[in-house]
Amino acid sequence: MAKQIATNVTWHDGEVSREDRHDILRQKGATVWFTGLSGSGKSTIAVALERVLFDMGKLSYRLDGDNVRLGINKNLGFSETDRTENIRRIGEIAKLFGDAGTIALSSFISPYRGDRDEVRALHDAANLNFVEVHVDCALSEAEKRDPKGLYKKARAGEIKNFTGIDDPYEAPTKPEIHLHTDQMTLEEEVAIVIDYLVDNDIIKREYFTRTEDQVNGPTAVAS
Amino acid sequence: MAKQIATNVTWHDGEVSREDRHDILRQKGATVWFTGLSGSGKSTIAVALERVLFDMGKLSYRLDGDNVRLGINKNLGFSETDRTENIRRIGEIAKLFGDAGTIALSSFISPYRGDRDEVRALHDAANLNFVEVHVDCALSEAEKRDPKGLYKKARAGEIKNFTGIDDPYEAPTKPEIHLHTDQMTLEEEVAIVIDYLVDNDIIKREYFTRTEDQVNGPTAVAS
Repeated sequence: MAKQIATNVTWHDGEVSREDRHDILRQKGATVWFTGLSGSGKSTIAVALERVLFDMGKLSYRLDGDNVRLGINKNLGFSETDRTENIRRIGEIAKLFGDAGTIALSSFISPYRGDRDEVRALHDAANLNFVEVHVDCALSEAEKRDPKGLYKKARAGEIKNFTGIDDPYEAPTKPEIHLHTDQMTLEEEVAIVIDYLVDNDIIKREYFTRTEDQVNGPTAVAS
Repeated sequence: MAKQIATNVTWHDGEVSREDRHDILRQKGATVWFTGLSGSGKSTIAVALERVLFDMGKLSYRLDGDNVRLGINKNLGFSETDRTENIRRIGEIAKLFGDAGTIALSSFISPYRGDRDEVRALHDAANLNFVEVHVDCALSEAEKRDPKGLYKKARAGEIKNFTGIDDPYEAPTKPEIHLHTDQMTLEEEVAIVIDYLVDNDIIKREYFTRTEDQVNGPTAVAS
């Protein structure tokens, strides 16, 4: 766990509450945390889920290894220490998104159980929904898919510390959702996540029906 | 500028676009970046602006020195290097929030011009609105207010590298908005920012009028 260095700070409660934001968005903030091997299907599910949520009028935002690695975590590599800091920062960002009322869809291998448990603890402490989804796929199948050619490079020794090859994947012991992506269709997988979000009162099962007012905008009001 | 360490990554375009999210939210994503001395009024304006935006049905989220320092940047101190990394990370987070469609309200002293210019460049490259607001207040007035007692500690030598005392504040040369908080009312300040957001097509001047459908929810639809 990162050490708190700055001590002359306190948490600010804003005047607009998290519940106010839920009210605007008609949803509750949450983090859906996909974890699994490279090639297990994390990003594929996240993209499909984002589309279904959008069709329901829900605001979600995908955080993935690629866009975060090119941005806030560009100064981190793939050593164990850097991977831990990578996941810690992503967990903190997801928490901010959840607090803002959005549904963060995080798809990172996040192979270490301890790192994921830290992210869960962050959300628990902030009273925010954390939905760990084990995107479970046999290594042989993930390696056969190898969408980015990374397993091939790892087997050739061109990439070191590659999860499943020369670095461990520590499977979740009690994930909220366990998907076997080598045995399910994408539609089934997305439906299971949507059902979970509905059953846990994070979203309602509804579609985005824009009223005339929403399409044209209400009458302009002078400030 | 932080060096890109991980190179085997590419940017993923999601199937739900930024414009789709704007459509749900009836606003455009943006970052409003307040910069100024400690005690100049950054947080006060951000809190008031957040409330006005909420009353207009707009989704904004405040990032401030206190909540970010206790979270993602808890492993950073107040050296020049750490302050630069602090601002860099916050800029990246604001960019993600803007991409998600929300209006990020960032209130940090952010004393170094070069750091702010990096954040602006990040937003420009992502084609995202960046609104730099100089929260300008005479040092003598800020020190008189001293809401957190920090100037007193800095004068006593208990805090080192304190902006305005023993560390420089580099004022913006071309901020989008320049507020003189020692000469304006809070209402005037907030109105100036709202006007800017409206004039630049980030929000419309409207109030949040919920329809019957929005209050009660549309008829449930089975998946």
